[in-house]
Amino acid sequence: MKKKLRIGMIGGGIGGQVGKWHRHAMSLDNKYELVAGCFSANIENGINSANELGIDLSRNYPDFETMATIESEREDGIQVVSIVTPNHLHAQPSIKFLSKNINVICDKPLTATMDQATDLYNAVKKSNAHFFLTHNYSGYPVIREMRRIIKDGLLGKIRVIRGGYLQGWLGSKEEESNKQAQWRTDPARSGIAGCVGDIGSHIMHLAEFVTNTRVKEVAADLTTFVEGRMLDDNASILIRMEDGSKGNLSVSQVAIGEENNITLSIYGEKGALHWAQENPNYARFSQIGELDKVITRGSVIQTSESMGHTRIPPGHPEAFIEAFAQIYSDAADVIQNKDNKDELLKVLPNIDDGLHIMKFINATVVSSNKNSKWINLSEIN
Amino acid sequence: MKKKLRIGMIGGGIGGQVGKWHRHAMSLDNKYELVAGCFSANIENGINSANELGIDLSRNYPDFETMATIESEREDGIQVVSIVTPNHLHAQPSIKFLSKNINVICDKPLTATMDQATDLYNAVKKSNAHFFLTHNYSGYPVIREMRRIIKDGLLGKIRVIRGGYLQGWLGSKEEESNKQAQWRTDPARSGIAGCVGDIGSHIMHLAEFVTNTRVKEVAADLTTFVEGRMLDDNASILIRMEDGSKGNLSVSQVAIGEENNITLSIYGEKGALHWAQENPNYARFSQIGELDKVITRGSVIQTSESMGHTRIPPGHPEAFIEAFAQIYSDAADVIQNKDNKDELLKVLPNIDDGLHIMKFINATVVSSNKNSKWINLSEIN
Amino acid sequence: MKKKLRIGMIGGGIGGQVGKWHRHAMSLDNKYELVAGCFSANIENGINSANELGIDLSRNYPDFETMATIESEREDGIQVVSIVTPNHLHAQPSIKFLSKNINVICDKPLTATMDQATDLYNAVKKSNAHFFLTHNYSGYPVIREMRRIIKDGLLGKIRVIRGGYLQGWLGSKEEESNKQAQWRTDPARSGIAGCVGDIGSHIMHLAEFVTNTRVKEVAADLTTFVEGRMLDDNASILIRMEDGSKGNLSVSQVAIGEENNITLSIYGEKGALHWAQENPNYARFSQIGELDKVITRGSVIQTSESMGHTRIPPGHPEAFIEAFAQIYSDAADVIQNKDNKDELLKVLPNIDDGLHIMKFINATVVSSNKNSKWINLSEIN
Amino acid sequence: MKKKLRIGMIGGGIGGQVGKWHRHAMSLDNKYELVAGCFSANIENGINSANELGIDLSRNYPDFETMATIESEREDGIQVVSIVTPNHLHAQPSIKFLSKNINVICDKPLTATMDQATDLYNAVKKSNAHFFLTHNYSGYPVIREMRRIIKDGLLGKIRVIRGGYLQGWLGSKEEESNKQAQWRTDPARSGIAGCVGDIGSHIMHLAEFVTNTRVKEVAADLTTFVEGRMLDDNASILIRMEDGSKGNLSVSQVAIGEENNITLSIYGEKGALHWAQENPNYARFSQIGELDKVITRGSVIQTSESMGHTRIPPGHPEAFIEAFAQIYSDAADVIQNKDNKDELLKVLPNIDDGLHIMKFINATVVSSNKNSKWINLSEIN
Repeated sequence: MKKKLRIGMIGGGIGGQVGKWHRHAMSLDNKYELVAGCFSANIENGINSANELGIDLSRNYPDFETMATIESEREDGIQVVSIVTPNHLHAQPSIKFLSKNINVICDKPLTATMDQATDLYNAVKKSNAHFFLTHNYSGYPVIREMRRIIKDGLLGKIRVIRGGYLQGWLGSKEEESNKQAQWRTDPARSGIAGCVGDIGSHIMHLAEFVTNTRVKEVAADLTTFVEGRMLDDNASILIRMEDGSKGNLSVSQVAIGEENNITLSIYGEKGALHWAQENPNYARFSQIGELDKVITRGSVIQTSESMGHTRIPPGHPEAFIEAFAQIYSDAADVIQNKDNKDELLKVLPNIDDGLHIMKFINATVVSSNKNSKWINLSEIN
Repeated sequence: MKKKLRIGMIGGGIGGQVGKWHRHAMSLDNKYELVAGCFSANIENGINSANELGIDLSRNYPDFETMATIESEREDGIQVVSIVTPNHLHAQPSIKFLSKNINVICDKPLTATMDQATDLYNAVKKSNAHFFLTHNYSGYPVIREMRRIIKDGLLGKIRVIRGGYLQGWLGSKEEESNKQAQWRTDPARSGIAGCVGDIGSHIMHLAEFVTNTRVKEVAADLTTFVEGRMLDDNASILIRMEDGSKGNLSVSQVAIGEENNITLSIYGEKGALHWAQENPNYARFSQIGELDKVITRGSVIQTSESMGHTRIPPGHPEAFIEAFAQIYSDAADVIQNKDNKDELLKVLPNIDDGLHIMKFINATVVSSNKNSKWINLSEIN
Repeated sequence: MKKKLRIGMIGGGIGGQVGKWHRHAMSLDNKYELVAGCFSANIENGINSANELGIDLSRNYPDFETMATIESEREDGIQVVSIVTPNHLHAQPSIKFLSKNINVICDKPLTATMDQATDLYNAVKKSNAHFFLTHNYSGYPVIREMRRIIKDGLLGKIRVIRGGYLQGWLGSKEEESNKQAQWRTDPARSGIAGCVGDIGSHIMHLAEFVTNTRVKEVAADLTTFVEGRMLDDNASILIRMEDGSKGNLSVSQVAIGEENNITLSIYGEKGALHWAQENPNYARFSQIGELDKVITRGSVIQTSESMGHTRIPPGHPEAFIEAFAQIYSDAADVIQNKDNKDELLKVLPNIDDGLHIMKFINATVVSSNKNSKWINLSEIN
Repeated sequence: MKKKLRIGMIGGGIGGQVGKWHRHAMSLDNKYELVAGCFSANIENGINSANELGIDLSRNYPDFETMATIESEREDGIQVVSIVTPNHLHAQPSIKFLSKNINVICDKPLTATMDQATDLYNAVKKSNAHFFLTHNYSGYPVIREMRRIIKDGLLGKIRVIRGGYLQGWLGSKEEESNKQAQWRTDPARSGIAGCVGDIGSHIMHLAEFVTNTRVKEVAADLTTFVEGRMLDDNASILIRMEDGSKGNLSVSQVAIGEENNITLSIYGEKGALHWAQENPNYARFSQIGELDKVITRGSVIQTSESMGHTRIPPGHPEAFIEAFAQIYSDAADVIQNKDNKDELLKVLPNIDDGLHIMKFINATVVSSNKNSKWINLSEIN
């Protein structure tokens, strides 16, 4: 009889958003059972969360250290921990659980500071446990199919990348009332960057994931449009990639009317691909001399090399939670040593991605502070 | 500590499609635990399914009667059963479990024949247990918001309904190789109708759900385009509703290129609403004298009267599995006597809907056999 | 030096709509010079129109008979007349000009009554002049390319046609103030049908044009939703075609929010095509086993057999006026005996189309009066 | 009786593209009569063009100087000249005709070099004749409505501009065979810039037109992707506007699969507007706290302040030629001193726009040569 992985959670108390998404994601494919947690710094909220989530109160912990110690000693202790705290609280618990050889699935970006990032990087490299980062958009089947198409050379040499991640929810001073907005606009918790760290990290990772190359240099113009805000809420970023391709990213959380508008266009010398997250089951595929084609999740089914897992037939749309669940599902298969483990490790966002994206975030801030001077990521430590 | 509902499943052995969707749907919100099943008429497949699904083999049953008897006697027996067999195998197990006061969640359409439908109807009316039908498209938050808008009178008196449910997967003789196609094109298992029963039932229910009225008369032209097929694979249906509105439905499983293209337009004397399932997080809303508006799931959050539950913020698309899960989630809340039980009972598809849609299916066949004569549903027994 | 065709106009006084469209259409390609007219029954409006349009007042006529007589006697008299009056005033002037061997380009539908239609039909058959009908939507390049694709067999045998022509501008009693609405809802001027005649005629012609077959039988449900209106303002029509294909049409002028929403889907046994007039430079093309393709006007350039003339490169959208102009441009080429005359005569809407569509209109009314009984067009005289 | 303006043309011989577009544009509204020309440097092509266009051969000129001299002396000489030659041949003929007080309508960009631009600027300032530039995209009714909305303050203070002008037709070395490609990639004829001059000029003008402010600084990364090409074929440009708003432009002629993909998004502190040229009859309009709205050409009719002229009802799409014709139509009204002349002069692209956009083009090249350093347009002479 198939057994589920026992998982715990750091952060994610009821009432919050991100923890809930992670729980939906880990539930969908029946590969995890949530059995322990340290859901909140507030004791009462922690207990309420545990009760609501059906966690035995004996495994509701007041702090992550205690949890790591006790769970690692139980025979039926957790095998995986999901870390869904604000950025400044990623490194410490991750390092602790990794030291106990408990696998970690951590929200992005990696950490709040480069120092934390380096510490965590070293801890991962020393541990036998796995560390995965929830760059969840890379879980969309159509995104993985786009990656395959590019790897198969159907676009030829990549020339241009055009990406956008546009939201409008921070268009006015939301941090005065909204908890999600508070920590995201607070340098102490979020780190050196605002929208570039929160969502710019996603579009940069996604562009790299799909094209299988990495950003080398950035020239950025970061702006804080909302008065009194401490971090950037809008950015235009020129990028140059390691493979010689170029392009730009538009990132904003003050783009009134935008919900979660992620778009990615990749142009090569033989073709192009276009995707928009808000209707994620489709991509447009151009090839020289041919009519444009529409890729649907349906086509993905036929190309298993894409690693794009799909649960339901074409036309029955899958969306955000399913893509998020894919990260959890793939991580479970790796942790349980499934046959396709090696292939999955190529698509799962890992510590190297995490550290690299931290350098990207920091490079954009340095560039912007130098009036958009080009900054090479190798200059960032 | 919150407890999950214990659920069992009839049909849905691994390798099939529909059972898997139901399992994703029941998992998503963590309100059910699958603990028993009779997954297949084939004993080996049943055992494999139980193993794969993490079901203790002692609760893997060879037939539904045994399962109903034993589970109803266990203290920790199932509280709900999910029935995902072909149409001709809905009535018997449903009646059996209802007789044991075990709640039933059943795939649509209600049954294969009117006789089975009537028997099941009577059984539900006698039982203290709940009976719900998975007309899953009514679980989409935007659909429920459309229903609210119409109930609130923003469209005025409804005039015209235009619906479509178009698929292309049966465009050639798929039943020669595909199991899903086999039973759907077999009168013994599917019933008197082909595409009208399988998917016409959905679009008719959806149109009624959104407009809160019911079809009274139909005039239908059913066709079997694929040679040798025994049931209709295409239909054009004129409809007249109880409230005086009118319209037509296009239903097809030979519409090459269509994946699962459900569209619904409702026109009233003051406004109109439009929705398409393949991009289900949006609807177009027209009102006389105003610019057309775009409803997103985001707007639904603010109108809780719509009963449209949404798990994640706007722009992070939800889709098919989430809508399907909504039926399971609402059913769980009713079964557990949650505060909003009465409201949920207004939106959950029930036995009355099931019997009514059976009459609709049968009326279209009768009409088509009489060269598209108008048939009143009251003539069908 | 290339000479333009001298053209006159019946109806179309300034202030009206349809005459203006025809003038834009005849101007665009520089093939016509408007030199004479009888623009209005109102003498003052006639003079004003002539002045505004740069017509010498000596060729501004008080009635069409005088105009036909004098112009046919002038050496520099008109070679073509454009008739843009309401339906009941199509036949008489057309017959008169045809009798003088002046070519006629006439607005659709052919006439108000079947009797007028038959008279006009006979007059055309006796005349040496050409008679063309402005079923202008058949002038769209992408529509003509769709026709070619179907003629080339890429869709296989056609199975299903789904058409819609939806407007909302008559959603309330517009005829109380709007002149365009007045004659269209007046049986004396419009004929036996309302929206079915005005716009149903277009979608039926378009479906026939693209599929190269004709409707044989109709079963229609016509409704007048706006109280006090004398003609239908909404219709659902089942159709059966001469080649065995089937389908339905939705026609409405009370569809609130719709501007000029014409849609056409054609499904064959090997593929399908989809087009929407409000974004007319594109079509979706499905073929079994392939990704859906997007046809753009750009692709048409490469397939001159489609007769789809296009004036500007892909991505520079052409639209309604250009498609309308195509009818005028093709008519000019035929009248001037250009080399591709024979090919153009295959695509230009002619008297046979006109009479056939009149039978279609009348058949829908007869069917609706008989509670949607199927009516064969051969029963209509 | 209304008289048409007599117009001549420099360049635009048959076989070419751009001249044809200008002729369609001047024909559409019946405000011009083409009576003279110097269509080609090749005498035979000039004669053929004149013949084909119905121009009396006595007014087919071998060079623009002769044409300007003779036409300015004829009583029925041209009142306007349309200049549709490559960029390096804009200044000289414009200056000549202006010196004869003949109005000039000139293709964009203004000239090939800054020196030519300055000379032409001075000539315009000295002449009594009008000089207009065909930044044709500003003629779209929906674009003009967007401008009105922003002027009316409905978006609040503008924060972010995101523009794109993407084509793919120069994705490989088209200049080896295609005449249009030849001069556009030839510095001697096109000027210092490739795609930035040809199409970047359009999107920059359009963004300024809509927002009613001007670019102040640019930081650009220009690339030549096609080997052996002499000018840029791709650009990412950061922009800072005079009013403090910011953003970026993506410009490319190597974007495989793109036809003429112009997009513009404007975000203000209270709302946003989005437009895409390939479906130009619509815009998306966001306002804080409201559902997104869809602007159609239909709504423009009701707001005459937008100066957005529209010829046909909503839903009957207008497109590229109509927008282009709007520039000609407005110019005609100004030249003929119509009542709304002052309003039209505010929207017609003029010499100041032309010189400014020349500075923009040159600034992007300077910036790119300095590794994307920010360049203030005031540094360009």
